[in-house]
Amino acid sequence: MSDSTPLENDLLLRALLRQPTERTPVWMMRQAGRYLPEYRASRARAGSFLDLCKNTELACEVTLQPLERFRLDAAILFSDILTIPDAMGLGLYFAAGEGPKFERPLRDERAIRALSAPDPADELHYVTDAVRLIRRELRGRVPLIGFTGSPWTLATYMIEGGSSKNFAHSKALLYDRPDLMHHLLGVVAEAVTAYLNAQIEAGAQALMIFDTWGGVLTPETYRTFSLDYAKRIISGLHRERDGREIPVVFFTKNGGPWLEAMAESGAHGLGIDWTQNLGDARRRVGHKVSLQGNLDPSVLYASPGTIREKVAETLASYGSGTGHVFNLGHGIHPEIPPEHAGAMIEAVHELSPAYHQEAIEQPV
Amino acid sequence: MSDSTPLENDLLLRALLRQPTERTPVWMMRQAGRYLPEYRASRARAGSFLDLCKNTELACEVTLQPLERFRLDAAILFSDILTIPDAMGLGLYFAAGEGPKFERPLRDERAIRALSAPDPADELHYVTDAVRLIRRELRGRVPLIGFTGSPWTLATYMIEGGSSKNFAHSKALLYDRPDLMHHLLGVVAEAVTAYLNAQIEAGAQALMIFDTWGGVLTPETYRTFSLDYAKRIISGLHRERDGREIPVVFFTKNGGPWLEAMAESGAHGLGIDWTQNLGDARRRVGHKVSLQGNLDPSVLYASPGTIREKVAETLASYGSGTGHVFNLGHGIHPEIPPEHAGAMIEAVHELSPAYHQEAIEQPV
Repeated sequence: MSDSTPLENDLLLRALLRQPTERTPVWMMRQAGRYLPEYRASRARAGSFLDLCKNTELACEVTLQPLERFRLDAAILFSDILTIPDAMGLGLYFAAGEGPKFERPLRDERAIRALSAPDPADELHYVTDAVRLIRRELRGRVPLIGFTGSPWTLATYMIEGGSSKNFAHSKALLYDRPDLMHHLLGVVAEAVTAYLNAQIEAGAQALMIFDTWGGVLTPETYRTFSLDYAKRIISGLHRERDGREIPVVFFTKNGGPWLEAMAESGAHGLGIDWTQNLGDARRRVGHKVSLQGNLDPSVLYASPGTIREKVAETLASYGSGTGHVFNLGHGIHPEIPPEHAGAMIEAVHELSPAYHQEAIEQPV
Repeated sequence: MSDSTPLENDLLLRALLRQPTERTPVWMMRQAGRYLPEYRASRARAGSFLDLCKNTELACEVTLQPLERFRLDAAILFSDILTIPDAMGLGLYFAAGEGPKFERPLRDERAIRALSAPDPADELHYVTDAVRLIRRELRGRVPLIGFTGSPWTLATYMIEGGSSKNFAHSKALLYDRPDLMHHLLGVVAEAVTAYLNAQIEAGAQALMIFDTWGGVLTPETYRTFSLDYAKRIISGLHRERDGREIPVVFFTKNGGPWLEAMAESGAHGLGIDWTQNLGDARRRVGHKVSLQGNLDPSVLYASPGTIREKVAETLASYGSGTGHVFNLGHGIHPEIPPEHAGAMIEAVHELSPAYHQEAIEQPV
């Protein structure tokens, strides 16, 4: 089912494609999340976190919650990055206060060789159902962003069986058996490509690939075991739907040293964390990609007055012209008062038009 | 008391000062630690981790343990990075499985204004006692490295009351009250300077400043709130003892993007983590500093054959000539089999002389 309602606000899509906009669009990673009391209420009704992800109506509800509160320029699908390994049969669960876990982590060659990419129409229909419902409920207000974890990031969870600090098993496999690690990443990349294309078919209007753990690799292994698979995925995605291009944002946390290489990934935009100066990042990637970021999420612990100052500095750092999507440099922390997030968003609305005068007067 | 026994092996000191050496010296961050069964036995005898740090004989014992097993080119004082805040009265303790905690974290301006730099001869004599004993027991075999946490790193623990993920309180203070954060860092920097000078007086022959949490800052706040205080400390240190220069190594974990600025800190050497290519880092810092690093500590989860290959790659990445101290890119992980550490160290002994032919033939 296609929803071809014209978008009332397509700032995000235009900025990601480096087209002129009248101001800088803004959204927040994890904007549907624990810092919102209404999210915590929905979560309590759902039961577990995973129940919330798998309940189409509730996933839609929490996706839309931040849009009711804040003048955001995008919705992002509420889901988990580990839906694919779960669909592959690894048994995802969430232990209280401990983050995601797998019942059957990959610890031998046989288990890795036995994996195959799941059909998204089969095991992952709850995700595409949610995308369709959210699109309907959004009624064209703002675009909907779909997302995935990167193959390397998913593989670390699949091998370690959960979050990790030192990545003992995944690093041992990568260094001792690069052939087997490449086999695993190939299967995961195939699954991710099909998954993102299914999200596009269901109505996702932009995509994000979260490479949460790419930054724990060396420069050489980052390229071979993370970036190359992001490239493979991006080259396999549908480029447009309903006549509009689907921009893809690739985000490697702590990937700052490798921006030049990331800019060659085929992604339209790159996520930038706060350890980079946005102006420097822009000079390094040239006109190849748009940039999304990069306020230190911990700035939101400070007062609204300080938050406004730091938004001003971030906008000034990027400078004039198109190609910037304002965001935090990582997901919003659960303890942030919602009004602090609001102060950030309002500051972007108020302060960013000054950086788009030329773009509007002299459209490229 | 001075110990002027000539050093049998001064490779570390020469390499840090960029003087010719016949091979690349090697040591490991956290080489005295949990991966060694003999360390775990000493720790069990001591009682708590803090008891071990404060017991001069046991601190000396565990400092020397890795030298009995491996052909290491340096000893590093066994201690904790949080001895200074403890001496300032914050009440350091270690909750089982939870890392360091403070009984009285800094949460208001009054508490911060009340702090003063402790006299190392008074509250911290257990550290200088250990330095003196270790020097005596080392009998000139290899140099002894003293160390400290950086002011920013110490301040985060003092404010948060322990380890942190998002640095809520310290970031809020930094952003909302930069004046107060600078006051705190000034007092801590004064304390660190006196502490390191006391370690030099007691016999430390090289020093390391661990800026474990500098990498969570933005480029701008890194310079103002971390790097500037490292500079201030280094400029206040005694430059030599017993006629030998005391080299200082500054290490910011995830500081790779800022190496050029770190090379201007006054440090003789920079610690490099594994997210940087060592050859690139060398080109970026030129002849200003030596480099210490940078094998991914998780390479030691792999097999000895793979470890040897990765040592070879690291040595090749730095290339020929002096100025390289081989180390891991971060502390050795507690689960590493000791023989894997041994494989790394032996590979450095065996493979590194080839990179020092010219240095010996044509001394600078």
